Amino acid sequence: MTNPKINTDHLNETTLSSESIFNGKIIHVERDTIQLEDKSQAFREVVRHPGGVCILAVTDQEEILLVKQFRYPHQTVTTEIPAGKLEYGEDPETCGKRELLEECGCTANSFTYLGNLFPTPAYCSEVIHIYLAKDLVFSKQSLDSDEFLDVERMPFGTAFEKVLENQFPDAKTQIAILKYAAMKNQAS
Amino acid sequence: MTNPKINTDHLNETTLSSESIFNGKIIHVERDTIQLEDKSQAFREVVRHPGGVCILAVTDQEEILLVKQFRYPHQTVTTEIPAGKLEYGEDPETCGKRELLEECGCTANSFTYLGNLFPTPAYCSEVIHIYLAKDLVFSKQSLDSDEFLDVERMPFGTAFEKVLENQFPDAKTQIAILKYAAMKNQAS
Repeated sequence: MTNPKINTDHLNETTLSSESIFNGKIIHVERDTIQLEDKSQAFREVVRHPGGVCILAVTDQEEILLVKQFRYPHQTVTTEIPAGKLEYGEDPETCGKRELLEECGCTANSFTYLGNLFPTPAYCSEVIHIYLAKDLVFSKQSLDSDEFLDVERMPFGTAFEKVLENQFPDAKTQIAILKYAAMKNQAS
Repeated sequence: MTNPKINTDHLNETTLSSESIFNGKIIHVERDTIQLEDKSQAFREVVRHPGGVCILAVTDQEEILLVKQFRYPHQTVTTEIPAGKLEYGEDPETCGKRELLEECGCTANSFTYLGNLFPTPAYCSEVIHIYLAKDLVFSKQSLDSDEFLDVERMPFGTAFEKVLENQFPDAKTQIAILKYAAMKNQAS
């Protein structure tokens, strides 16, 4: 991640103590006391999260699969690419294939890693892995009991325009679509 | 955000009660009991955050400004575009100009809105606004007392390649760079 030629040791923060605040089903929250390189102390509020996987699933007709779901913290329905939370210790590719099947009833004969993202590195440990799924085979959606979402297909070009028009606020959805567009553009 | 022609009422979640878990300096955590449209109940763990602003600052030589900082939850130094947290009630543009001045010692004669992003809509209310800053004028960096970061300049083309090579994990940095590249590509 960092350039090994440039020394960034003066930016380091050392943990002095860690106080557990909340052990939830999805997140764990802690408040750590840290020491900066100038020896002064500060607090860091940290949300621990097991990480996630999202999938840009592209049909043979160059449509992508999107899910609409109610996002409680924003009190709105968003349109996002399929995604899910990693079980602790789970392989991201296994998780991605499971979520694509559960949310969209779909398996992919081609599953390629597109990179990862830190959604909020200032206070959250979550890493989201992105996969490109192609050669899709459709079967049946099988959601968790408290999961409600609608699946739709959209031409990739339309989805790309919607990202540029700021109609898809979800970060992982923007990155997957913009990155795939850039890769297609470079390949052409 | 949603298509008004498509009814998504069946996806809605209604708050029944809210339990405050943690009131931190940066985040507030709560655990809400909600009712789904099929009348069953579930819990939602929610991180409340005031939101943030990030700035893609582009010099006349088409270089961008990047900051290196230690990201405690990931225990690593990342390279990101300048950004900061909104004060409650603060106008995003005002915040963006302040952060650009504090982190990079820089003001911009051109400041354009590029859109926003929800970094983790499943459990966090944060919205990050993106601005494009041009016609830059440089003065002096003035960081918060517990803030340590290094500023560097990089040709935009190099930064774009690094995003495609997955060397910039930060979500807002990836989106700002990919979106600006797509806009430049459409304009050319």
